[in-house]
Amino acid sequence: MTNIGVVGYGYWGPNVVRNLAENKSCKITSICELNQEKWESIRKRYPWVNITNDYQDLINSPQIEAIVITTPVSTHYSLAKQALENKKHIFVEKPLTDSVESAQELVELAKCNACILFVDHTFEYSPAVIKIKEIIDSGQIGKIHCISSFRINLGPHRKDVSVISDLAPHDLSMFFYWLNEEPTQISAVGKGFFHEQIFDIAFITMKFPCGAIANINISWFSPIKSRRMTIIGSEKMIVYDDMASIEKVKVYDSGVATFREPESFGQFQLSYRAGDIFSPRLQRYEPLAQAVNHFLECVRFGKSPRTDGADALRVVRAVELAEESLRRNCSV
Amino acid sequence: MTNIGVVGYGYWGPNVVRNLAENKSCKITSICELNQEKWESIRKRYPWVNITNDYQDLINSPQIEAIVITTPVSTHYSLAKQALENKKHIFVEKPLTDSVESAQELVELAKCNACILFVDHTFEYSPAVIKIKEIIDSGQIGKIHCISSFRINLGPHRKDVSVISDLAPHDLSMFFYWLNEEPTQISAVGKGFFHEQIFDIAFITMKFPCGAIANINISWFSPIKSRRMTIIGSEKMIVYDDMASIEKVKVYDSGVATFREPESFGQFQLSYRAGDIFSPRLQRYEPLAQAVNHFLECVRFGKSPRTDGADALRVVRAVELAEESLRRNCSV
Amino acid sequence: MTNIGVVGYGYWGPNVVRNLAENKSCKITSICELNQEKWESIRKRYPWVNITNDYQDLINSPQIEAIVITTPVSTHYSLAKQALENKKHIFVEKPLTDSVESAQELVELAKCNACILFVDHTFEYSPAVIKIKEIIDSGQIGKIHCISSFRINLGPHRKDVSVISDLAPHDLSMFFYWLNEEPTQISAVGKGFFHEQIFDIAFITMKFPCGAIANINISWFSPIKSRRMTIIGSEKMIVYDDMASIEKVKVYDSGVATFREPESFGQFQLSYRAGDIFSPRLQRYEPLAQAVNHFLECVRFGKSPRTDGADALRVVRAVELAEESLRRNCSV
Amino acid sequence: MTNIGVVGYGYWGPNVVRNLAENKSCKITSICELNQEKWESIRKRYPWVNITNDYQDLINSPQIEAIVITTPVSTHYSLAKQALENKKHIFVEKPLTDSVESAQELVELAKCNACILFVDHTFEYSPAVIKIKEIIDSGQIGKIHCISSFRINLGPHRKDVSVISDLAPHDLSMFFYWLNEEPTQISAVGKGFFHEQIFDIAFITMKFPCGAIANINISWFSPIKSRRMTIIGSEKMIVYDDMASIEKVKVYDSGVATFREPESFGQFQLSYRAGDIFSPRLQRYEPLAQAVNHFLECVRFGKSPRTDGADALRVVRAVELAEESLRRNCSV
Repeated sequence: MTNIGVVGYGYWGPNVVRNLAENKSCKITSICELNQEKWESIRKRYPWVNITNDYQDLINSPQIEAIVITTPVSTHYSLAKQALENKKHIFVEKPLTDSVESAQELVELAKCNACILFVDHTFEYSPAVIKIKEIIDSGQIGKIHCISSFRINLGPHRKDVSVISDLAPHDLSMFFYWLNEEPTQISAVGKGFFHEQIFDIAFITMKFPCGAIANINISWFSPIKSRRMTIIGSEKMIVYDDMASIEKVKVYDSGVATFREPESFGQFQLSYRAGDIFSPRLQRYEPLAQAVNHFLECVRFGKSPRTDGADALRVVRAVELAEESLRRNCSV
Repeated sequence: MTNIGVVGYGYWGPNVVRNLAENKSCKITSICELNQEKWESIRKRYPWVNITNDYQDLINSPQIEAIVITTPVSTHYSLAKQALENKKHIFVEKPLTDSVESAQELVELAKCNACILFVDHTFEYSPAVIKIKEIIDSGQIGKIHCISSFRINLGPHRKDVSVISDLAPHDLSMFFYWLNEEPTQISAVGKGFFHEQIFDIAFITMKFPCGAIANINISWFSPIKSRRMTIIGSEKMIVYDDMASIEKVKVYDSGVATFREPESFGQFQLSYRAGDIFSPRLQRYEPLAQAVNHFLECVRFGKSPRTDGADALRVVRAVELAEESLRRNCSV
Repeated sequence: MTNIGVVGYGYWGPNVVRNLAENKSCKITSICELNQEKWESIRKRYPWVNITNDYQDLINSPQIEAIVITTPVSTHYSLAKQALENKKHIFVEKPLTDSVESAQELVELAKCNACILFVDHTFEYSPAVIKIKEIIDSGQIGKIHCISSFRINLGPHRKDVSVISDLAPHDLSMFFYWLNEEPTQISAVGKGFFHEQIFDIAFITMKFPCGAIANINISWFSPIKSRRMTIIGSEKMIVYDDMASIEKVKVYDSGVATFREPESFGQFQLSYRAGDIFSPRLQRYEPLAQAVNHFLECVRFGKSPRTDGADALRVVRAVELAEESLRRNCSV
Repeated sequence: MTNIGVVGYGYWGPNVVRNLAENKSCKITSICELNQEKWESIRKRYPWVNITNDYQDLINSPQIEAIVITTPVSTHYSLAKQALENKKHIFVEKPLTDSVESAQELVELAKCNACILFVDHTFEYSPAVIKIKEIIDSGQIGKIHCISSFRINLGPHRKDVSVISDLAPHDLSMFFYWLNEEPTQISAVGKGFFHEQIFDIAFITMKFPCGAIANINISWFSPIKSRRMTIIGSEKMIVYDDMASIEKVKVYDSGVATFREPESFGQFQLSYRAGDIFSPRLQRYEPLAQAVNHFLECVRFGKSPRTDGADALRVVRAVELAEESLRRNCSV
């Protein structure tokens, strides 16, 4: 039974806390939340938990073995650092931090202090995303040419971070998980409708060593909500629509056949194939429950988490590059 | 009754010919088509038409007043030039030509010879696109922040032109028609899956003088077909789904309200509004029939067409800039 | 602060309890649940609540003013009767009982004992259903010709009741609420796939005094889930798709115009009108929260609930008639 | 090369004529059409065809071997009878006639005169419908429990026939083709909005000897167009959505497993299975082209058509029974 302290009961915190509360291998000891208006709600649901507004209560508690950090990104570095220095395992909301430098420091520190550093890239624990990884690894879709992602909806606009820092880590962590590599080139265009430096909409393009190109279209200002990814392989194509209630993942056995025409001296010929469409049954569980459970297992058995520091770092690096490109493109 | 000659009965030609045949104010005199396998099909449907494989028959015919050019882009310049030099009015398939230079020369030539130069940007004659123009011009959607377009489907891959030259003119002509201006900045990333220089998929981003940004996502390699545009205004949002059978255009009365909060010294406050959704009834006609009819009217009454040389030039210019950017980005 | 006892923490009970717990004008005193495996879950979430397996604890408690009955239908009559005899107000899950006779007795009893009898026809508290009522009452859709409802999905099959008793009360209560009358004729066909008398799929047809016909298509055996109602009026048509995330209610300004052609001696002429489509913004709240709140208000202020005994009775009557028809049709 | 005469160039006639014109094994000799306003359109497209307003020209022509009857249902019997008496093969639009008696007479007559009697139940030639037949016959969906069909849209209202006679033959011919049997029981409810005896909307229910029940929901008064059929088998379920552009047929590997629980003395246990979804690639051709071709083959080689008199008769019989039930239910 691992004793857990949680810091931050704002937007995502209540979801993590609910999943921790339902997991039998841990106990939430304390929750640190500065906004006292939220205390009553915590007290009503989790009457056994200590509530505090002093983070020191968590990191100094000898009882608490692991700390869950679900606060705004800008505070991650400082809170995580203090926790690691006190030899607490940490579960940090994505993205790990807002700079490569600070993220690297945390990864180092976790290693030195033999602490688990888990970053909550929840999608990597989703049944659909794992199924797609299996399909890709099976080789059946062939060489990956292109991945596109649309993650657009109406609000909520964040005052403190751009849409890239807020939404793109989801797409980036999935891309890197599937392709198992980082991009060699990232560029982005975008626009902040209300504050010039806080982008509300952005288009990110990437190139990967394997030859794949990728596109992310993210927005807080779309009248329709869409969460759709398309993976174009040389043999098959996958569409992953996270808004679909049943057919979230579809594999299209259609594509383009290419063959070398003898008489045309090496010129390729193309022909389109329409094909069967297959939608695999997915397991049904809440990804966050799986993430929380994996974290707790890593803590108990000293395993390295799937979404560890290295996993988190490449996402932070890509966000940083995309935002640099965005600012460069905007000053033109 | 205007006598018409048509050159090119390949992919799009039969559609134009069908619309000409149904229009009572013109008569198709001759069709020039090099591929003699298509002659029987022409003969069966339009037994009164002369068929030839010599373009000179068309431009030298004193009877023919106007020539419809529905051949591959690479041939437009030469065919159009000869027609204009023989004082024939021309209807040219989009894009006008494959370079700004040649397009400009044709525009000049048409002017000197007092000929109508009509470019078939068919979408500008579509009920949905015209309705959106009316909505934008009425001011009800406010200032335009962003336009996105997805024009993706499976095939047909063209051997001779990139997806940009083939598909993007549709989006570009609509964007310029709606915004009534040209972009100040265009960049593009893409990939040719089979021939390095013939792009099969591309992401184009643009900035406009009015402050709007725009994104075009075009592909010949998508398992799902999508023809969707989204226009984000400061007051309302429009979604135009050309694949929808009934609700092609939807106006979302939702958005983001912004107000200046007195005590915070100029800081803006945002609040999201959900709202009614309205889908206007659209007229039902074939855009190409309308385009053909408009061309014939311009010929008869000496009017300047809506999709004239200037309209066509800005599209050719944008395609050229996008392709330059694409090649630059690819050589990185 | 009204003290509440709840009997039945099975399928729907936890939802009602959650809404009661979040309502500030009541307090859940006791929960009676026979299945002791559920006790821990209750204790964890609502540690202040007494848990019992003896219903007498609830009806004999002087403290408890109102009882929420969320048990299987077959037990409603007996539990409700005991509560009313002990002068407790009651909130009963739909349908009120499984026979008109027993339902009538409860309505009588509630009246005699001056108790509130509230039946949880939740849909009558839904923003979409209330908006549709407003639209109908405004007269804009004209005379109602026809209402259809599809309520189909995969499972859960109930062992004890037919799909009619389980699902149709939703449709029936909406139909009667909108039309404000009961049908004059009800017939049904159906099939029990596993037990001949427990129907898993049924088609119900009805005629109303106003001239409208209605159709309900309900099933536990559909691979796709659908919750769609269509209301055809002489002037406009409404589609209510409860599965839609945003445009749940759409009003189609299309229809059929009819006019009397003078020369044809009274023969009607028809012409179809395509028209605008309008999707009104709906309020966003959980219907059950609104139902619970309305019940508590009725208890506090002695008001008669919108979904009172009379409302419940007409639903029970229709279910009884449909099941009679079903058995008659099956024995043919 | 079979010489063909066509009678009726109204609503469906032009489609059949177009397919005949494109088929290389026949020649359209004459078209009989009473409405002379349509003659010019015929002349323009098919200049080699004789046009007449006298049906005798067709049946008396020694040259014409087969007659295509695409006129209103009420005229089928008389026109078909004359053709058969003159030993012409016939292709008749569905339904064959408007009464079982007259249909039987034609079937007899065709047999005596050794003429092909082909009824245009076009759907039986559609790639989707044939694929579903294959799936059913393979046994993989198990025993069929239920078939539902929705064939609803806005107009066109027919003055002369009810929605049952106009639309239901499509569903009925598919049901009978798939199940290979006729229903033992048919009932219907409906409503005529403008003429009491011409039903615009109807709900038909059926029972089949194999135990399956079926439901048809047809309407000319629906704001949304739907062409969806669902087949519920004991092992799998099929959804056929004819409006879908790609995934017209989907096979759901989900369902209900049933097993006999030993200790409960024969009581069945149920458990739901979610499963994979599979959408088979369909061939792409126009069903009517296939139907026309099959007819011409039958004429040439003296084969019995798949949609012969017997096929047509069971549809006419079902329509007659449904309309009788409708009138009976309406007079209540």
